[in-house]
Amino acid sequence: MIETVQLHSSAKKSIFAHSFVKHSRLLRLAVVAAFGFGAAALSGCGAKDDDDAKTAAGKITGISDSVQKIVADRGLTPDDIKAAVSTYVPSGKHDDYVMFASGGHSGQVFAIGVPSMRMLRSIAVFTPEPWQGYGYGTGSNVLAEGAVDGKTITSGDSHHPVISETNGDYDGQYLFIGDKANGRIAVIDLRDWETKQIVKNPLIVGNHGGTSVTPNTDYIIEGSQYATPLGWEYAPLEEYKQKYRGLATFWKFDRKAGRVDREQSFAVELPPYWQDLFTSGKGVSDGWVFGNSFNVEQATGGIEEGKPPVEAGASQRDTDYLHIFNLKKAEQLFKDGKAEKIKGLSVISLKTAAEEGVLYFAPENKSPHGVDVAPNGEYIVVSGKLDPHVTVYSFEKIQQTIAAKKWKPDEYGVPVLDFDSTVEARVEVGLGPLHTQFDNKGYAYTSLFLDSAVARWTLGGKYSSMHPEEAWKEIAKTPVQYNVGHICIPGGDTMHPDGKYLVALNKWSVDRFVPTGPLLPQNLQLLDIGGGGDKMQVLYDMPVGVGEPHYGVMIAAGKLPSWTVYPQAGWDPHTQAVDANAPLPGKERIVRNGGTVEVFMTAVRSHFTPEHVKIKKGDHVIWHITNAERTQDATHGFTIQGHNISLSIEPGETNTFEFTADTAGTYPFYCVEFCSALHLEMMGYLLVEP
Amino acid sequence: MIETVQLHSSAKKSIFAHSFVKHSRLLRLAVVAAFGFGAAALSGCGAKDDDDAKTAAGKITGISDSVQKIVADRGLTPDDIKAAVSTYVPSGKHDDYVMFASGGHSGQVFAIGVPSMRMLRSIAVFTPEPWQGYGYGTGSNVLAEGAVDGKTITSGDSHHPVISETNGDYDGQYLFIGDKANGRIAVIDLRDWETKQIVKNPLIVGNHGGTSVTPNTDYIIEGSQYATPLGWEYAPLEEYKQKYRGLATFWKFDRKAGRVDREQSFAVELPPYWQDLFTSGKGVSDGWVFGNSFNVEQATGGIEEGKPPVEAGASQRDTDYLHIFNLKKAEQLFKDGKAEKIKGLSVISLKTAAEEGVLYFAPENKSPHGVDVAPNGEYIVVSGKLDPHVTVYSFEKIQQTIAAKKWKPDEYGVPVLDFDSTVEARVEVGLGPLHTQFDNKGYAYTSLFLDSAVARWTLGGKYSSMHPEEAWKEIAKTPVQYNVGHICIPGGDTMHPDGKYLVALNKWSVDRFVPTGPLLPQNLQLLDIGGGGDKMQVLYDMPVGVGEPHYGVMIAAGKLPSWTVYPQAGWDPHTQAVDANAPLPGKERIVRNGGTVEVFMTAVRSHFTPEHVKIKKGDHVIWHITNAERTQDATHGFTIQGHNISLSIEPGETNTFEFTADTAGTYPFYCVEFCSALHLEMMGYLLVEP
Repeated sequence: MIETVQLHSSAKKSIFAHSFVKHSRLLRLAVVAAFGFGAAALSGCGAKDDDDAKTAAGKITGISDSVQKIVADRGLTPDDIKAAVSTYVPSGKHDDYVMFASGGHSGQVFAIGVPSMRMLRSIAVFTPEPWQGYGYGTGSNVLAEGAVDGKTITSGDSHHPVISETNGDYDGQYLFIGDKANGRIAVIDLRDWETKQIVKNPLIVGNHGGTSVTPNTDYIIEGSQYATPLGWEYAPLEEYKQKYRGLATFWKFDRKAGRVDREQSFAVELPPYWQDLFTSGKGVSDGWVFGNSFNVEQATGGIEEGKPPVEAGASQRDTDYLHIFNLKKAEQLFKDGKAEKIKGLSVISLKTAAEEGVLYFAPENKSPHGVDVAPNGEYIVVSGKLDPHVTVYSFEKIQQTIAAKKWKPDEYGVPVLDFDSTVEARVEVGLGPLHTQFDNKGYAYTSLFLDSAVARWTLGGKYSSMHPEEAWKEIAKTPVQYNVGHICIPGGDTMHPDGKYLVALNKWSVDRFVPTGPLLPQNLQLLDIGGGGDKMQVLYDMPVGVGEPHYGVMIAAGKLPSWTVYPQAGWDPHTQAVDANAPLPGKERIVRNGGTVEVFMTAVRSHFTPEHVKIKKGDHVIWHITNAERTQDATHGFTIQGHNISLSIEPGETNTFEFTADTAGTYPFYCVEFCSALHLEMMGYLLVEP
Repeated sequence: MIETVQLHSSAKKSIFAHSFVKHSRLLRLAVVAAFGFGAAALSGCGAKDDDDAKTAAGKITGISDSVQKIVADRGLTPDDIKAAVSTYVPSGKHDDYVMFASGGHSGQVFAIGVPSMRMLRSIAVFTPEPWQGYGYGTGSNVLAEGAVDGKTITSGDSHHPVISETNGDYDGQYLFIGDKANGRIAVIDLRDWETKQIVKNPLIVGNHGGTSVTPNTDYIIEGSQYATPLGWEYAPLEEYKQKYRGLATFWKFDRKAGRVDREQSFAVELPPYWQDLFTSGKGVSDGWVFGNSFNVEQATGGIEEGKPPVEAGASQRDTDYLHIFNLKKAEQLFKDGKAEKIKGLSVISLKTAAEEGVLYFAPENKSPHGVDVAPNGEYIVVSGKLDPHVTVYSFEKIQQTIAAKKWKPDEYGVPVLDFDSTVEARVEVGLGPLHTQFDNKGYAYTSLFLDSAVARWTLGGKYSSMHPEEAWKEIAKTPVQYNVGHICIPGGDTMHPDGKYLVALNKWSVDRFVPTGPLLPQNLQLLDIGGGGDKMQVLYDMPVGVGEPHYGVMIAAGKLPSWTVYPQAGWDPHTQAVDANAPLPGKERIVRNGGTVEVFMTAVRSHFTPEHVKIKKGDHVIWHITNAERTQDATHGFTIQGHNISLSIEPGETNTFEFTADTAGTYPFYCVEFCSALHLEMMGYLLVEP
């Protein structure tokens, strides 16, 4: 009985803390019907044992019997049961939200259903992926566009996804993502969930603060991290201050074309402080952009030469610099021709930026990870990771400080605003604060890396009336497992966040899952933040063993414009239009023109037409395949054995690939996506005559 | 109230059908304590409304109140609740089983925790994967070993995983997997979950029946599918019967070395029927191997030339051939020098195999998918996919038929046994039967592709006493969503299967999940088969959007020998031994030898030593990094910006990669795995002087 008492106590603490609305008698009836237990309480009873109770309750308690047996066998606690029924999504029902998480050095993006925390799909971005047919035939042109030093890169370190916005809220049309390892950004179309463009920044070899968007997606913002000379040309570290630079790039997005417009894009040269995350202002701060930095010491390491290692050298001063950009002014300078073209990209020089009021700094507690803007745009939150406080800057105060010219220039001539004049509040949240997101109840949430926890704290100002607690105060803290980096709330970086769920993107999982060898998955934990107040229960642990998600953005599933099949047979996903050259049923053919053979093939359940492709060694082959199906999920795949070709041809899609037949032989080709009862028979022969 | 009644009815049907053991009063108390509902029934009460009930129940029903609210809000049914509490694994607790599923044309293997159906990890096999550092530095030697026509292949179509066995049961040491697209098999070591070897079959360009193992993992079996000339040399289709062949390859596995021993391996030449799955006998049939086939018509298609398309041509006859191998005899012939070396692989000719009693055929209903052997080895199950029955062959009857020489030769001289003499039973199961697995209660389970269902049926003979039902009879059928291919039960293809869960690997998901564009995930569904009898509830839908799992094998999690960190700092995972050349803390250095620069680097939180690597354009660089950490999960990653290098260096591991510095410039390198609070500072500079 001791155990019983303990569990009561735990239940009371954990469940009663939530304030649920009173439900009506009708609702109560439906609940009992659906769940079965509690029926005795509803109907009243004089039952003295289990069997009698069943009778009294009209056979309803039998449900709880079987469920109770499972609960006992599996050792579930009341909190576990709550979590189970909160996250379980029955067969055929859909998740409420989709989180797009970066895949870290997998180079991909992962779409995760919430609250079930099931990975719905990977979207191949920087790394070839044969299941999606990305980079193994079609798609390779996108990867080639992102070449570095003339070489196609087949990996990436995808960091910060962002959904396109209209008026400061997600519109669900596009997803953008940066590649820290190679200084690139990618554009994904959320109609077909495919990567359409990879833009290599010609001036920075890596980035970090990418991507974020302005409130109407006019610009996609990309910030550098580790400084190099612009164009990453060689310069010795002794010339660091003279030649090494940071960069903020504002890529103009052409929404209609679905592409970055390089000609309308520009960048701002920055001192070689290591810029980190960049985020756009919104609402009252629309037209401004904020970034953080973490090595204003300009340390470059050299532990082997007796110099302080980077992590020590970069932590010597108490403060780094919050970067504050007047984007509207920068855009005007660019349009006025005050930017200089370097390697094809228009750059506003550091000198111009400092002199013309494009760039300001404000001190920030040292070595923060990121900067976050509250929903209405008034507050800018930065956490120095070695300080237990978050610092809340006021946009209004920043403007006043600029107007009053309360600044001193840094060594590059950039105005450093007076710290005290810009700050609205400082809130103690715990050890190792990194990133902050916002909800719809006037709360902010900050990840605490060293505490391995998520803190909830109250916003002040106009947000004060949204919550019952004192403003600018931590009110809840929930441990997470372990070492949380970013956190993600639906719309948590927009003007209208939702407030039901929070995902903690934890970096270490250690003991959470069945060990998977020395390489362990990450642990993404779902927290219930719907109740407000001092309770935030961890509902679910999701192992991620296909990459290292760095950050995520979450959107209501209903806002996604996904196509179920391509609009028309013969569709080219790269141009998002019908390919006039696409093979169609009845028009299949093989055309030889000298040493070039062009194959026009269709695929329908359960055959390819033609089934025989006869060529000669040395021929160059251009091979088109149209999936002529119009049924959702009737995807066909295609491979030629031994040829390293892997296509995923979705209903309506046309794929084209090319190769030179440099080895004679007999090569079966077949459908690689199990499409029908006669799928194994969906094959043909490529015959390469010597 | 109508809805209420309906739900009662559903609850009664679905829950009471399970026969749970009576639980003791003590257990009952624990259940109530943990779950809270049903308390009124236990204690007896005179409560007339909700508030009173709470009092009577000692504040316990509060738990069910909050859970009931969630259940009502989310519209969960009693079956949903049962499923939720059956599959939810609380934070920090582990799944009971791990299913290793092939990744289809993703080329990988996925490890999935059961019953939670969470993907724990991907294991890179045939496709490079930068998160694991596979093929982006180290690991590429394994991919190079699997080259086809001299070219490294960076994709695959992974099909049939199998766990190494001792005495016919999984021992958990190794995992093997075949690549249908390129005729390869791979060896994965389950201590560190890494791919150690890819073996290219020199005689077949593709495969399908790969892999399976003999009961003590002496041999890994690989079967061809689409016939080509051996060595896939060119031959016109007109010479199909003369020159095209199938092949069964028996790869000798050296368990101590953890590698296939090519010299001790051999193959058996087969007619150009399209062989499908091969599986080893066990118990009474140990020493024999069985395979199915599906195109004894020897059709090759040619729809564009007016010939019947493959799927029609290959379905003209009523029967195909079950392949029956006497492996012991084949091994003896090989050892006696009766095999001929072709392209380095020893081959027993079709003529020898037929004449010496190595190979027999038995008619099977046409176009089956696979062949499965019951736990004690006596029964061999084949399902012709166009026939609603499974056919159960008796190993004893096969032996008697062989002894009695009741056969006629096929056109290649292979004895075709008399069908009726070999068959034990035929069981009607439904439309499109494909694959069969077994449990520990005398039941078999068959996937029904066209019915989109899983059937449970009873085995006869010695299994009859294990179940209450009549032998050789279907007793349950559960719909699945949709188009199920393989199914997987823990140990379901071994001598001692478990019987708690079944996973249906469904090929289409259609409407099951939030739409993810035209390319949808697969749907792996977990079924509760623990209760026996006529009920098998679908417990969970798992979307798989990172590949197309073809087949899976499931093992108790506790049987896996996973290392948490590598045994010693400086470990080379390829040799599974300490690398004598590995850099160790205090011994870091850069050594120049002419135009070759060798870097000996260590990684510990939070720095690399050395932090500066200064070379000249044109230098060839050999770069070793040891992760000197001994803490579980303290993995470091490594990339050099713009260089397409991505390493995952787990605790203790040493990685080596090489490149030629052909472009001058300034290239930051950094840790790509978020390792510590100062992770962003874990970086250095590669300076390539012009």
